[in-house]
Amino acid sequence: MTTYRNAVLLLLLLMTLLTAPALAQKATWIWYPGDFEIWLGNKMQNRRTERGSFLPPFWKLDNHYVLIDFHKDFDLTEAEVAELHVEGQYNVKIDGKSLFGYPERISIPAGKHRISLKVFCQNSVPAIFVRGKKVVSDTSWLVTFEDKEWIDQSGKASDQSGTSWLNAAAWDFDDAASPPSAFKLALKAQSAVKTVRQGQSLLVDFGKETFGLVKLHGLKGKGIAGIYYGESREEALDTAHCETLDKLNINLNTKADTLSPLTKAFRYVNLQLGPGMSADSVSMLYEYLPVEDKGNFKCSDEEINRIYEVSKYTFHLNTREFFIDGIKRDRWIWSGDAYQSYLMNYYLLFDSPSVTRTLLALRGKDPVTSHINTIMDYTFYWFMGIHDYYEYTGDQSFIKQFYPRMKSLMDYCLSRRNKDGMMEGMAGDWVFVDWADGLSKQGELSFEQLLLARSLETMAISAKIVNQQADAKTYHLLAEELKQKIFGKYWNEDKKALVHSFLNGSPTENVTRYANMFGIFFNYFSDDQKQQVKKHVLMNPEVQKITTPYMRFYELEALCALGEQPYVLKEMKDYWGGMLKLGATSFWEEYDPARKGSEHLSMYGRPYGKSLCHAWGASPIYLLGKYYLGVKPLSPGYETYLVEPVLGGLKWMARYLHQKDRYVYIAIPTASGSAAPKVREPYG
Amino acid sequence: MTTYRNAVLLLLLLMTLLTAPALAQKATWIWYPGDFEIWLGNKMQNRRTERGSFLPPFWKLDNHYVLIDFHKDFDLTEAEVAELHVEGQYNVKIDGKSLFGYPERISIPAGKHRISLKVFCQNSVPAIFVRGKKVVSDTSWLVTFEDKEWIDQSGKASDQSGTSWLNAAAWDFDDAASPPSAFKLALKAQSAVKTVRQGQSLLVDFGKETFGLVKLHGLKGKGIAGIYYGESREEALDTAHCETLDKLNINLNTKADTLSPLTKAFRYVNLQLGPGMSADSVSMLYEYLPVEDKGNFKCSDEEINRIYEVSKYTFHLNTREFFIDGIKRDRWIWSGDAYQSYLMNYYLLFDSPSVTRTLLALRGKDPVTSHINTIMDYTFYWFMGIHDYYEYTGDQSFIKQFYPRMKSLMDYCLSRRNKDGMMEGMAGDWVFVDWADGLSKQGELSFEQLLLARSLETMAISAKIVNQQADAKTYHLLAEELKQKIFGKYWNEDKKALVHSFLNGSPTENVTRYANMFGIFFNYFSDDQKQQVKKHVLMNPEVQKITTPYMRFYELEALCALGEQPYVLKEMKDYWGGMLKLGATSFWEEYDPARKGSEHLSMYGRPYGKSLCHAWGASPIYLLGKYYLGVKPLSPGYETYLVEPVLGGLKWMARYLHQKDRYVYIAIPTASGSAAPKVREPYG
Repeated sequence: MTTYRNAVLLLLLLMTLLTAPALAQKATWIWYPGDFEIWLGNKMQNRRTERGSFLPPFWKLDNHYVLIDFHKDFDLTEAEVAELHVEGQYNVKIDGKSLFGYPERISIPAGKHRISLKVFCQNSVPAIFVRGKKVVSDTSWLVTFEDKEWIDQSGKASDQSGTSWLNAAAWDFDDAASPPSAFKLALKAQSAVKTVRQGQSLLVDFGKETFGLVKLHGLKGKGIAGIYYGESREEALDTAHCETLDKLNINLNTKADTLSPLTKAFRYVNLQLGPGMSADSVSMLYEYLPVEDKGNFKCSDEEINRIYEVSKYTFHLNTREFFIDGIKRDRWIWSGDAYQSYLMNYYLLFDSPSVTRTLLALRGKDPVTSHINTIMDYTFYWFMGIHDYYEYTGDQSFIKQFYPRMKSLMDYCLSRRNKDGMMEGMAGDWVFVDWADGLSKQGELSFEQLLLARSLETMAISAKIVNQQADAKTYHLLAEELKQKIFGKYWNEDKKALVHSFLNGSPTENVTRYANMFGIFFNYFSDDQKQQVKKHVLMNPEVQKITTPYMRFYELEALCALGEQPYVLKEMKDYWGGMLKLGATSFWEEYDPARKGSEHLSMYGRPYGKSLCHAWGASPIYLLGKYYLGVKPLSPGYETYLVEPVLGGLKWMARYLHQKDRYVYIAIPTASGSAAPKVREPYG
Repeated sequence: MTTYRNAVLLLLLLMTLLTAPALAQKATWIWYPGDFEIWLGNKMQNRRTERGSFLPPFWKLDNHYVLIDFHKDFDLTEAEVAELHVEGQYNVKIDGKSLFGYPERISIPAGKHRISLKVFCQNSVPAIFVRGKKVVSDTSWLVTFEDKEWIDQSGKASDQSGTSWLNAAAWDFDDAASPPSAFKLALKAQSAVKTVRQGQSLLVDFGKETFGLVKLHGLKGKGIAGIYYGESREEALDTAHCETLDKLNINLNTKADTLSPLTKAFRYVNLQLGPGMSADSVSMLYEYLPVEDKGNFKCSDEEINRIYEVSKYTFHLNTREFFIDGIKRDRWIWSGDAYQSYLMNYYLLFDSPSVTRTLLALRGKDPVTSHINTIMDYTFYWFMGIHDYYEYTGDQSFIKQFYPRMKSLMDYCLSRRNKDGMMEGMAGDWVFVDWADGLSKQGELSFEQLLLARSLETMAISAKIVNQQADAKTYHLLAEELKQKIFGKYWNEDKKALVHSFLNGSPTENVTRYANMFGIFFNYFSDDQKQQVKKHVLMNPEVQKITTPYMRFYELEALCALGEQPYVLKEMKDYWGGMLKLGATSFWEEYDPARKGSEHLSMYGRPYGKSLCHAWGASPIYLLGKYYLGVKPLSPGYETYLVEPVLGGLKWMARYLHQKDRYVYIAIPTASGSAAPKVREPYG
């Protein structure tokens, strides 16, 4: 284990930033944990349109609890008055005694008192904001939906009625006048870089992939204003096939500015005005989640630097209410896509609320009636996301609050094993793995079993955290048994690899990269096996190539884990550099270097079906942070960690870290050999 | 089995009314079954206030599914245009192809076509209204929340994706402009019978128990208008203790009419105006569910006739959005109370939607985290309600649509049996039985086991209906085993009765009426046992008396089942007649003849805590219909039935039945001995 003093310093600074306790006595809006996320997830995921038709998700959407009880016990040295703000219809009790009506202020005498609020709200999440001197709403309040279940598996005390109380949830709604139901992302006006006017049409170029509302300035006339969006120029111009469009019914006698009704992804906007209509110009309101970069990266290779910057932009565009897949479509939360965003996040934003919001929206509520997003692998990524979240942040509260939801989801998985105890697609299951031609999904896929094994390991870790030792033992045994079975069933000594599947009582002969690359960074292979897999699978051009950045992520991670940074650097430059050479301003859903011209734009049988800004395209953020800068936790929350920089062909790497009003500049093996941190003026 | 030709005719007429098929091609608003009921239940149950404080339920409230897919396949001989009305954000597909935007009309070509709508709605239930010539929305449409579960236990086909489709639900929303979210009960202006004005107060008497909004006519001035409601004069005048009140903040320079903000129960209204304020008069808007009586009853005893009429009024007041417990409080749906309303309904309204609405709102959704209303017995009454619904109506559709919810609730019950397989209160369980002083709830109560046995029998019947033979067998065996255990554990040969409970390994010596009376009309006793129980329990004044009409219902039913109509008639006259003699205009939550004066008004330690209009007070409707007129189904939906009138001390009984524009008059043993139906002019 190699550690560099400068990198250690970097991490200590990082951890200071991450573990700073919330200010005491600061009032914030609170609610039942997970409910805001589900409510907001419904709202966001129902904003997708396709050629002007509403296109909602095709799985069960859950709902917030409409009736919530909040309480906290206070011991006040002096009497005080607290103001109340509530989303919903409510009552307030002091020591169990109801106050009249819907008070906006309450007086609490000195001494020990229990303040309780009970709130009913159908349209949005029941939420409260209480602000007195000591009596303030924060996550130390307890909440229940009055389940009346005696829950002990979470380690939470239930009261005598069997009701389980969780800690209230909050985000950053610290303003009484801005309740959770009013949540909106930030907006910023941005101008076009080029506008071409031709007759009744304006083709507007914003210079790069972007997202937000389109503003039509000085619009006038009566008729339809058609807005055709394009991630590419081709798409915007092809009004018959572009993926998204709006048709505004306009009736304006005098010039006025008009906003498009719904945020969209685009670089180009093709405005088509009806006869007699006119518009002065087109600009936009860029919509974004205001979240700060905590990581950065520079190195000696300018192409890698550009790949990093475009990855960062791609990642920011897809980091919104939640970590979404892509901004053009689906604009949904897909667990497999989100899983990669969690990992990138730990190397760029370190924004834990974005991780937990996404995990919660994905999980929804019981009963579990299908896999997450209906996809078997995506359920497992959900567990793996919790594994990593705990590893990177050390935060046990998610597991403590939601262990019952973890357990019931795992129960669902275990109940769907076949008679041999393996996961196999059943009616209603989508076995995804990757977008790849001819990939078989029949029978028991080795890939799915590996993911289940890792999920069971996550459950074992989590069960320990909530002090459920019997569960921990069960999950540990299930994981061990499954890993043994995996090697018994899939390891092919001739092929030196795990085969793809087990079908009709026998392993197939088919070797794919999927299970093999996960086996490496899950550390399920012996050292020997790792070298064999590297040679016979990962570096073997005969094995079907991966064409999505999604699976390239894991492929390159596996190679990095095997010390192949120089090779991976070249792959990154080829693959991501390849997209840049084609003019990408954000990274794509899929990139096959063998395709030509506008072939790159098509997918799903549609000429512009492909998303040109997909979160999973941003993986260099993760690869460069984890395997070149070489920073990773060895125990939860970086209590112990490894910093093992690998230049991998680069001459130097550097990382800037914001520390109050200054930036600390960290250089890892510099040309001069100096490793000391340099303090510089803000980096622009 | 005795049948009377006239009564047979009556029933045939009755069945004609009940089984009339809905008009073909009539468009109606449709939604996912159960969802409107849950949504409306939340709305209604969150209208309770106590002395001006919001008082919501103390159990988990569920929610509608926010995203629903609707479809139906049509085969059209000619093209047509259909209008669409939708509650929520939606898309429309014809044969899988999305239409642009949110169309209000669609054109469907001739031939076979699938029309699909997918609707997202958070605030109310996703609902659609489609009206073309043949393309109309009705309950033949299929709906799903995209569970992706392969459900075969309901006998419903799931599609290839594993999604289960149910038939859409409807009620009577046949007007496109009146969608389900706009549902409101009917209102009717009513006047006070007496107003006493004293200084700044008006005491207004509406002459009888009633429910609705209070209208303050010609209100003027600035300040607080306090409205104090009283089911009794004492309550309205006791502003410091009355159960409900409103304080209106008034600022009127000129006279205006003002409505109270929320419906309330009252006979008396005490209006207290602040200094300088004035009002001309007080009237009300009576709020009610417009539902017609299909039954009626007259007999030779005028007191019984009055009891019947007051029962009817009591029942109507409590038959609202749902069958509620009482109109002053709790205004909630309590399963035990509702169970009796179902039974009364079959002898007065025969309004199936009121039964199924109530059953669905009570059941809510999975996961089950507590007993219904948190009460163990109330869960069992839910099953029993389905048993009777099927018996009286023959309608299998409820069971077919909701068998999975029945099964998961029964799973919950079975999972909470103790190690001896018996139901015993666990943390979070409320074991209710009845309001009765000193009633023990410790250990295994015989009463609860009987109710579970009946519930298991209901499950066995239901499983057969959905063709789940294995389930049917399991439930049947469980019921048989449990009944054997009940007699083994609780039957005391010395006491000739089932004892109350089994505690610390032994049966107690305590005999109560509860299990014994249910054992009779469940037909669990042998004929010998019945006679023993009658003598040693039901007719035995040493056994603790019942003081709630709630349990009087079953006590008198058991006696009627044993042929004790003359005795029960006397009991009815004493008990219900007793309330009438005290001036009751509706029947009470509890009546103990031993109490005096205003003692009758108190309950729960509050001087006016008792409800003076409680649904369970209306049981004479049921007793007179089932055990005097003697009409009951012998097989589901009256396919075979028994009509066995018993005068029980009455000289004659008669029933009027509405048949189109005429009334058929049925007299059962008339003084003259004639049994032929007489056709008369409308009965006023």
